[in-house]
Amino acid sequence: MAYTPPLDSMQFVIEQVLQAPTDWQRLPALSVADADLAREVLQQAGRLATDTLAPLNGPGDLQGCRWQAGEVRTPDGYPAAWQRFVEGGWPALACDEADGGQGLPQLLNVALFEMLPAANHGWTMYAGLLHGAYEALRHTATPLLRDRYLAEVVSGETLVTMNLTEPAAGSDLALLRCKAEPVTPGAVANGDTVRITGSKIFISGGEHDLTANILHLVLARLPDAPAGTRGLSLFLVPKTLPDGRRNSVHCDGIEHKMGIHGSATCQMRFEAAEGWLLGEPGGGLAAMFLMMNSARVLVGLQGVGHLEAATQIAEGYAQERRQSRAPGSNGGPDFIAQHPAIRRILLDLRAQAEGARVLAYATGQQLDRAQHAESTAERLEAQTLLAVLTPVVKAYLTQLGHQGADRALGVLGGYGYMHDYGVEQHVRDSRIAMIYEGTNEIQAIDLLVRKMLGKPEHLAALLALLTTEAQACEAAALPAWATELAQQADTVRIATEQLRAATAQDPERPYRVADDYLQGVALSLMAWAWARLARAAQACADSPARTQRLAWAEHGRLWLLPAARVHWALVQADALPLG
Amino acid sequence: MAYTPPLDSMQFVIEQVLQAPTDWQRLPALSVADADLAREVLQQAGRLATDTLAPLNGPGDLQGCRWQAGEVRTPDGYPAAWQRFVEGGWPALACDEADGGQGLPQLLNVALFEMLPAANHGWTMYAGLLHGAYEALRHTATPLLRDRYLAEVVSGETLVTMNLTEPAAGSDLALLRCKAEPVTPGAVANGDTVRITGSKIFISGGEHDLTANILHLVLARLPDAPAGTRGLSLFLVPKTLPDGRRNSVHCDGIEHKMGIHGSATCQMRFEAAEGWLLGEPGGGLAAMFLMMNSARVLVGLQGVGHLEAATQIAEGYAQERRQSRAPGSNGGPDFIAQHPAIRRILLDLRAQAEGARVLAYATGQQLDRAQHAESTAERLEAQTLLAVLTPVVKAYLTQLGHQGADRALGVLGGYGYMHDYGVEQHVRDSRIAMIYEGTNEIQAIDLLVRKMLGKPEHLAALLALLTTEAQACEAAALPAWATELAQQADTVRIATEQLRAATAQDPERPYRVADDYLQGVALSLMAWAWARLARAAQACADSPARTQRLAWAEHGRLWLLPAARVHWALVQADALPLG
Repeated sequence: MAYTPPLDSMQFVIEQVLQAPTDWQRLPALSVADADLAREVLQQAGRLATDTLAPLNGPGDLQGCRWQAGEVRTPDGYPAAWQRFVEGGWPALACDEADGGQGLPQLLNVALFEMLPAANHGWTMYAGLLHGAYEALRHTATPLLRDRYLAEVVSGETLVTMNLTEPAAGSDLALLRCKAEPVTPGAVANGDTVRITGSKIFISGGEHDLTANILHLVLARLPDAPAGTRGLSLFLVPKTLPDGRRNSVHCDGIEHKMGIHGSATCQMRFEAAEGWLLGEPGGGLAAMFLMMNSARVLVGLQGVGHLEAATQIAEGYAQERRQSRAPGSNGGPDFIAQHPAIRRILLDLRAQAEGARVLAYATGQQLDRAQHAESTAERLEAQTLLAVLTPVVKAYLTQLGHQGADRALGVLGGYGYMHDYGVEQHVRDSRIAMIYEGTNEIQAIDLLVRKMLGKPEHLAALLALLTTEAQACEAAALPAWATELAQQADTVRIATEQLRAATAQDPERPYRVADDYLQGVALSLMAWAWARLARAAQACADSPARTQRLAWAEHGRLWLLPAARVHWALVQADALPLG
Repeated sequence: MAYTPPLDSMQFVIEQVLQAPTDWQRLPALSVADADLAREVLQQAGRLATDTLAPLNGPGDLQGCRWQAGEVRTPDGYPAAWQRFVEGGWPALACDEADGGQGLPQLLNVALFEMLPAANHGWTMYAGLLHGAYEALRHTATPLLRDRYLAEVVSGETLVTMNLTEPAAGSDLALLRCKAEPVTPGAVANGDTVRITGSKIFISGGEHDLTANILHLVLARLPDAPAGTRGLSLFLVPKTLPDGRRNSVHCDGIEHKMGIHGSATCQMRFEAAEGWLLGEPGGGLAAMFLMMNSARVLVGLQGVGHLEAATQIAEGYAQERRQSRAPGSNGGPDFIAQHPAIRRILLDLRAQAEGARVLAYATGQQLDRAQHAESTAERLEAQTLLAVLTPVVKAYLTQLGHQGADRALGVLGGYGYMHDYGVEQHVRDSRIAMIYEGTNEIQAIDLLVRKMLGKPEHLAALLALLTTEAQACEAAALPAWATELAQQADTVRIATEQLRAATAQDPERPYRVADDYLQGVALSLMAWAWARLARAAQACADSPARTQRLAWAEHGRLWLLPAARVHWALVQADALPLG
């Protein structure tokens, strides 16, 4: 039941569906990349996932991390796997060549971060923040700090944490109380030395044995900072100081969690720990969002990874396990894959996995355009689209990953409940992705209230995406998809406009239906993804793979898109009180 | 975050919604019971759940069962808790007084078995089969075996297992290979001694330290038995034989599972173990179904228990945790229970828990009628209704329990993912209930193919239930509910008749949509349950509880029933291929 990186599907999405190599040739910063290089990178990443990470996944879950007297030992094999990750140059994949990176497209980093959590989510937690931290550092740190730390972050020699949450402040960062005292009295400027005091919780990789040093990015308040999020600044606090002294940063314990047992989730205590301001005072939240946006996309990829891995387990089991005679069979016992109830689940999962990959990778493609497109107009267009896609990718794909793993478990019956088959671990490990980096409830509010009701260009961008693809399907002789996408666009437009009008009377209303709205929009984007998959397959020469891809898209259209109706009905219901 | 047995809700359902005490007065076998006695029983059961079982739940999950050299040690405190269960007379609750039982209604056993798994599912696994085993024994065992064992099963002095599953035979019992050799050659009759040889897996409580002896009920094949399920016979195989010898029944290991870690899930090996035939040769499956039917209802109750317990955790947390300003609030941070996204989840869960309880307890009431009604007509009517209700209660309520626990976890954000808060354990523990005692996929096929398309009286019974309640709502000035239930009945009728017609052309079709059909029927029964709740509340004097119950039902109608549309659309779709 080993995880097999779906390289064929990945390549098909990158090359045929998204035609990303054309972008890479077009964008000077990415012109080092081409289809051959991408294939080579994906193959090597796949080997890392299967040979190095997957074998540690089940054992690491059972062994977990161990805390003693402030030190954390990760499961056996984790530090060695980290060394292999560093030696392979993986942390540097999408970092600028000027910073020692490989300058490859974010899209390839996105594909990498589908495979890593599919093979071993717990281990991947340590690597997951590197790229975001790199972005935050290079945009906010002084040249001195950049020179000191950027290269070791890019190489993976040093790992990074993100210290936001405190016991009383999770989703609401305005409540953070951690303090930063300047060492020299007076105004504080970028790079100035401070002393940080306070407690942080749920800090992934706050302490571990993978790297000698750990860099903590910490949100805290300078003296006299205003209340709320405007008073938050970002600080860099190393575990070991440049002169070799151990900083006063302590791990007081690790959490016992539902899953990702290989990831040390730390309670951190800063006791006048030395650090430096990153960026401007009060710029903490903005700096965090530099990390957050690509981090949210990568969390969505965790969902895709779990969905793919769990689906593979279910498919493999169903093709080997014989029970009972299937309807219409003459013999029996038949493979359970032949039983319609199981076939239905397997096709749902496979269609979701393939569609989710298109959607997630398309978002990765926009990350590259937003960063590297030559024209401001194209960069802005990509950023607008990303503003819409990011909360959907984060919330909906993590939901698909968790719920899909849970359904896949059911395919194995009693065996699915046993640790040995691996699928129950995917259920447990995938659950956290719906919570961290902004809960899925918060993503829904972000999508509806901040984005779609906030600025008209967001709705316009989504509608343009859907209608453009509708036209392309029309031209490609895929009339069912053309109709479907045109209807999806109509539904999204009408529902959004209705909501905008209704909100004037009832300002709470969008908050009540935000989740349904996100589900509806997400299904319209899944429709878009399946249509693109179908259109790319249609353009290929006849082959079993082509037939399969067309069938998956069709399954999505017939069996999975109808779920949107309920969500839109609730969004559009005339007066829907809530308690 | 301790579990509080919802005694008010239970009493309201039993007394006001179902008016069960009226039944008890009417049915001679149950006339010992009345509302006061029921309240007393529920209160004591609640105390057992909170004082004895709940404190062992989290620790038992972390400690788990330990296997060594064929012996199993349950978590600390489990054996003592079992003694308290026995001393309280709980195993005997619904057993006949003639057999040493208390002769109380099954409905009270149903309420007991909501509270036990809510407090501690792992521990409850040991107790869960007692009543079913009692039924199987008293209906099939010879007087000699009944005299020997029935009293100790009723008292709980001896625990019982159900040995069905083998490595190659889970859902498909026809594939069972375990063998029974008669000790004396020739025809085998009820009570004859045999020697059982074979392996069984996933045997809950196959070995443990709660009781001195363990009785194994084993499905196996006599020599020359026909292939398939007709060749299965049921045998009684004690761990310790009447003369004190240890029987050749061995526990070769226990499983590492996703949840219910306190329950020993055993790999069993029978090596010419001594046992006796129960009932007639080839009567194994029929005897198993004596256990199965009430066992399936009790599994549904596990779903209700998890849903209730997890909902309580979410409600409690949301009323204590403050984050961010809620829309429309002047201050903030507000309790997250005031945020619409959270309020929506909490109301969904609460409405589901209250509706699920009505549906499950109504099924318990039918268990009593089916067994104890004086007229054959009433018993048959109840049995027909049970045939429809049982697969729905088993499948849909376990699904609500698991998915509800999973949503409740989300209310706690990151804390929900931590073991300490208890809700993640409910997610893990509740998952197995969707699998055992017939997977939920099999329940759906049972409902649609065997029951609703199988015999017209099943559809008629369901429609009568819905339309009778529609009329009652009309009379009670609940017109929205009257309309809703009339529509639900129409939808069920039309969809079933369409399916019946379509099946002639396409025999596989019901198997493709069985799950959607079950979801649709289940929501029609939830509508029925909420309507009954609303009607009973409506009849009460004005009070906060009355207002709440009416609001929960209304929430179910407006926010939760629309989900059925998608399922019926798929059931009714004209031509829906599957791969």
